[in-house]
Amino acid sequence: MKWKRSERLVDMTNYLLERPHQLIPLTVFSDIYQSAKSSISEDLTIIKETFENRGTGLLVTVPGAAGGVKFIPKMSNQSMEKVMQEFMENLSQSDRLLPGGYLFMTDLLGNPEVMSKIGKVFATRFADSSVDAIMTIATKGIPFAHAIARYLNVPVVVVRRDSKVTEGSTVSINYVSGSSKRIQTMVLSKRSMKSGQRVLIVDDFMKVGGTMNGMKNLLEEFQCELAGIAVLVEAESVDERLVQNYQSFVRLQEVNEKDRTINIVQGNLVDGGKEQ
Amino acid sequence: MKWKRSERLVDMTNYLLERPHQLIPLTVFSDIYQSAKSSISEDLTIIKETFENRGTGLLVTVPGAAGGVKFIPKMSNQSMEKVMQEFMENLSQSDRLLPGGYLFMTDLLGNPEVMSKIGKVFATRFADSSVDAIMTIATKGIPFAHAIARYLNVPVVVVRRDSKVTEGSTVSINYVSGSSKRIQTMVLSKRSMKSGQRVLIVDDFMKVGGTMNGMKNLLEEFQCELAGIAVLVEAESVDERLVQNYQSFVRLQEVNEKDRTINIVQGNLVDGGKEQ
Repeated sequence: MKWKRSERLVDMTNYLLERPHQLIPLTVFSDIYQSAKSSISEDLTIIKETFENRGTGLLVTVPGAAGGVKFIPKMSNQSMEKVMQEFMENLSQSDRLLPGGYLFMTDLLGNPEVMSKIGKVFATRFADSSVDAIMTIATKGIPFAHAIARYLNVPVVVVRRDSKVTEGSTVSINYVSGSSKRIQTMVLSKRSMKSGQRVLIVDDFMKVGGTMNGMKNLLEEFQCELAGIAVLVEAESVDERLVQNYQSFVRLQEVNEKDRTINIVQGNLVDGGKEQ
Repeated sequence: MKWKRSERLVDMTNYLLERPHQLIPLTVFSDIYQSAKSSISEDLTIIKETFENRGTGLLVTVPGAAGGVKFIPKMSNQSMEKVMQEFMENLSQSDRLLPGGYLFMTDLLGNPEVMSKIGKVFATRFADSSVDAIMTIATKGIPFAHAIARYLNVPVVVVRRDSKVTEGSTVSINYVSGSSKRIQTMVLSKRSMKSGQRVLIVDDFMKVGGTMNGMKNLLEEFQCELAGIAVLVEAESVDERLVQNYQSFVRLQEVNEKDRTINIVQGNLVDGGKEQ
């Protein structure tokens, strides 16, 4: 079958979007479309410019025999702020207020459109952090972790509170929960990670950071490196955080149960919290 | 800015892929690209044909004032079988065997590329089942549920074994675990679902089907309808399943701990298990 340029553009766009952060040799495309490399290069130039103009991401060309092209999902700061504003508005609705000053946000974590946008924001921020894997803790961190993982194209490992027979042999550590000061346990399957990997730790909510700190300690047991810490919602200012250098999407400034008001502000992600 | 056809094709492809099962009025495109509807229609014809030729999916045109275009992810039977074969080979590796005849598959559930392909297979099968939401149970079903949800563009609701303060008020039911015959509890946040929704129930593993049956009962408490049941790995033939009409991806035919062999066969999904 002979492919027209217009058809190649549609199919190559799909092909690249499905394989973020993956180096694709140009021969892959010339084989699929039975086209000369020069035509493929011209196609890629069009895709590259359109992706950049629309804030879809970058198309990075790696020259040489082992070279090819790589799609890096990257949003503009403006688009990231828009996603954040939408999320803040949604999260500030007073009917989210639960007894004890907690916020209901399970519906947002279960919404693939919302999570996908937020995943792309974090993948933008950590695009250059050489992330090999994403670590989170069951249960609510999982959709957030997978949303980022899809755009970074790396696996997710899930830490649990209890050991399961389906996990095989595990490594278990004790840690001190930041808020309640209780000793807790977290467990990770031994096969989950190889030593030397760079790991992004993520969770949907962080208060003092005890759980995050526990995951950091778990990394050491696996001889892995910390690539960064990502938090969806950070609790109102806490005197002493147990972790530093995290990137938060939004911050819960104040929750007033009496007036039923929720005040949410930007996290440190957009104006660039420091990366490690 | 004036858009060329080639640029429109790249951007429209991205736009459609990000919004599966969503009706997009043509005016959306003519506004974005400042182009006549006739040009947009021609673009869509090119995208439609390329998507169909490459097994990306269908582009359905809805005529009339309230009309537009809708992208339905659909894989060919051939592509679905390929994904299934890959998964079966991977899952049959003898080092996956755990004491007690269990299989280690956490790494596959954590791999976004693997899950994305499998999610598309199930989204293809349930594309016409009018699914409003996907229900699963914590923890391991979550990535599988989200992988399907992304292609059907519907929310995921997660049933838990225990009630959490961050879930608000909950509905709790008791059910009999199929294998152990023990009474267990499952809990779902009241806000998770509205009555009348059509729900696809999914889990990563099914033996007798006690958990699936529990989720079915939970649906009734919410006055929701069953749209289907999806299982990633089905255990070797069980005399009496508690649920019928499920779609399984693969079936664990035999696990031999002594010889360390695992025999995995196709589930009923590809050659079409009955839908409800």
